Amino acid sequence: MSDQGNGANNKVTIIAWSGDLDRAYPILILATTAAASGMDVTIFFTFWGLFILKRNDRGLTGKDWMTKMLSLMNRGGTEHLKLSRLHMAGMGTSMMRQIFKKNNIASLQELLDMAREMGVRLLPCQMTMDALGLTRDDLIDGVGEPAGAATALEEAAASRINWFI
Amino acid sequence: MSDQGNGANNKVTIIAWSGDLDRAYPILILATTAAASGMDVTIFFTFWGLFILKRNDRGLTGKDWMTKMLSLMNRGGTEHLKLSRLHMAGMGTSMMRQIFKKNNIASLQELLDMAREMGVRLLPCQMTMDALGLTRDDLIDGVGEPAGAATALEEAAASRINWFI
Amino acid sequence: MSDQGNGANNKVTIIAWSGDLDRAYPILILATTAAASGMDVTIFFTFWGLFILKRNDRGLTGKDWMTKMLSLMNRGGTEHLKLSRLHMAGMGTSMMRQIFKKNNIASLQELLDMAREMGVRLLPCQMTMDALGLTRDDLIDGVGEPAGAATALEEAAASRINWFI
Repeated sequence: MSDQGNGANNKVTIIAWSGDLDRAYPILILATTAAASGMDVTIFFTFWGLFILKRNDRGLTGKDWMTKMLSLMNRGGTEHLKLSRLHMAGMGTSMMRQIFKKNNIASLQELLDMAREMGVRLLPCQMTMDALGLTRDDLIDGVGEPAGAATALEEAAASRINWFI
Repeated sequence: MSDQGNGANNKVTIIAWSGDLDRAYPILILATTAAASGMDVTIFFTFWGLFILKRNDRGLTGKDWMTKMLSLMNRGGTEHLKLSRLHMAGMGTSMMRQIFKKNNIASLQELLDMAREMGVRLLPCQMTMDALGLTRDDLIDGVGEPAGAATALEEAAASRINWFI
Repeated sequence: MSDQGNGANNKVTIIAWSGDLDRAYPILILATTAAASGMDVTIFFTFWGLFILKRNDRGLTGKDWMTKMLSLMNRGGTEHLKLSRLHMAGMGTSMMRQIFKKNNIASLQELLDMAREMGVRLLPCQMTMDALGLTRDDLIDGVGEPAGAATALEEAAASRINWFI
């Protein structure tokens, strides 16, 4: 936890549980907007949310056939996330990405890079990594030390704004 | 942002990202309950959530074939929202609406009207409107000025309760 | 609402709206982690979330054919919850449960029992119970009095951390 007392008034903690394209957007837009306005921002990536941090060039991951199979069905990486609805075998997701591009909305990867540059703390959930057999090498550079629920809670308790997305 | 300091103790900000029938209910029930208890309430409608504010009589919207196609697949308006699960080609959604009616639970439209009358601020997300080609005329009367993430964040930072739904 | 003022600094309120296996986990992990660190925790179970509290041995419930039919399609109880994605006719959900077991992650039922023992307040939503025809007997032992949105809001307003899951 960074700083107590006054610090509680200037901190945002987002628990990023979702790995959908359409939910990754508010996670990263709210985080970068908060950082831009001078707030201290932590994102705790857990469960499906961890897949936002997966390298785009990493396909099959896992430690046994079950976790490998899950990685095939849910590859992860900003370029491979899908819409939570209207995915329609890829057509809806592809259209939404095109609509964003046409409207000059930053891509997820650009937002994620921006978040890192702005000093947003990106904490991967240790339990999810262990369970799914993901290693630090499977994740992008610049993420923080894998952390547990106790750390997420501590960050949240020190925050002015909390969101579970 | 309405009022700082003490005001932070009496304000609720809901980021309404979801456009499902079953998630629109807690958004509007929590908002009207908070307003009824004298709290200052802001709802920021973004992404799928914006479709809660779409007029029920407005069908096809958008500025090009992609956004028009999306409006066909995701029409919006309180009367056209679907359950996030058990929709079952409309049967589950229809049954849930009937169950609510039988139990004298207000309809979404009634809750939305009530929220407006109670002074709940309904802020549509500018970026979503631009991207999907939605205009003020496509939305119900009485919504606030379209706003961006910075405004949503400012409201959130001044709030005692924050929820992302 | 337990205690005002200083109490607001030591309380967590989770609105548990989701009844998915993968969302029930963060609900119960965050709740038990907070209780373990000495915080005062309330979970308000509403809509699909109420099904986390349903007895595993209770199948068909409801007061008329519609609510009975819904109970068949969405049985509830910690042992019957499904993944929100990759359920794949049960295969994905079954694999995820096995992965958790192999990694010595507590089952949902164990987490729920632990939460009760730690004194986490488990409040079922009265409106959902009435609408779906669920009775106290359909729910596990040790839950609090069924409550409404006003109670949930009161708990939230007294909390340092709020999450809608």
